[in-house]
Amino acid sequence: MGPIRREQICRAAATVIAREGFAGTTMRQVADEAGVSTGMLNHYFVNREDLLTKTLVFVSELGVARAAAALDGLPPGRERLAALLDSVIADEDGVAELWRIWINSYGEAVRLPELRQQIGAELAGWFERLDYALEGLVPAAQPGEIPWSWRVDALLNGLMIRALTSEVALDQAKIRDAVIDVLLGSSTDSPSAA
Amino acid sequence: MGPIRREQICRAAATVIAREGFAGTTMRQVADEAGVSTGMLNHYFVNREDLLTKTLVFVSELGVARAAAALDGLPPGRERLAALLDSVIADEDGVAELWRIWINSYGEAVRLPELRQQIGAELAGWFERLDYALEGLVPAAQPGEIPWSWRVDALLNGLMIRALTSEVALDQAKIRDAVIDVLLGSSTDSPSAA
Repeated sequence: MGPIRREQICRAAATVIAREGFAGTTMRQVADEAGVSTGMLNHYFVNREDLLTKTLVFVSELGVARAAAALDGLPPGRERLAALLDSVIADEDGVAELWRIWINSYGEAVRLPELRQQIGAELAGWFERLDYALEGLVPAAQPGEIPWSWRVDALLNGLMIRALTSEVALDQAKIRDAVIDVLLGSSTDSPSAA
Repeated sequence: MGPIRREQICRAAATVIAREGFAGTTMRQVADEAGVSTGMLNHYFVNREDLLTKTLVFVSELGVARAAAALDGLPPGRERLAALLDSVIADEDGVAELWRIWINSYGEAVRLPELRQQIGAELAGWFERLDYALEGLVPAAQPGEIPWSWRVDALLNGLMIRALTSEVALDQAKIRDAVIDVLLGSSTDSPSAA
């Protein structure tokens, strides 16, 4: 299958999963959205779990590329970190879709070892972008400590999940400011930073 | 339906959803696990979404009760916070089940307004426990700022999701220490705490 057909199908899968949730997504809906036959879809995805995993890879690669572009040319410091956070919190269609597919994947990954493994692989690229954005802002993690990139990732995920899956009132600027505040407050002044 | 039958069915639903994931859970499986007919199940749950929502309420009430018991009699301070965190990170069956059902609910809540509303209601009790555990440890949130209880909740959720849905290496003690470190570092020393 050529790369254009592949992209067309992954893009359609992302649209349907973000709209219907994974539990509400059928192969038929994705085929219709992509304008291809279900036979074509079955050549490309072994089953529904494979559909979710490949869609996660597709949107994650787009997301990491967008994050890398947002950081391009910025010197180390608070502005670089803010640019990274804005690129993954922005109130844009592609960003909301990215989060919806990730959050659906978390639900499924609880029981699917292959999906957990793929999530681990996707996180490597994301943690690398985070480390780059954190350059000069945080101390090196002590042996055995959870790295700062993981902490930022966790806080960001937790806040985005509340924003997208509950009634608590959170917006883009509040989430960005809370992450920076928690991070720079604790990393620049605490005794463990010495 | 009596309260015992109700508890028996909710407990069975929690077991099945935690084991199979919500997408892999059928009414038939839950009925078998509970030892009741599917007709009985259909009297109690309108549909699969209702099954998930009521199961979430059931495990959350148990979780909040467990958290409240863990805090009982402890004075305000770091020990009280650590006790709360331990009660919701502990490597015990009920705790892992609680997280698996919450994480599955996040995936579904993206598209289900009723579930989002229920999540909002459950969070109220949890945020209250968190505020109690944070007594004396954090400054009052400034107007417009995300409250500290929400930040702790977000960090905890983000770390637990990574622990349960990816290949990154996190354990109970590391998660508890990271939450306390991020929190107390930034709240006691940062300029905004003054």
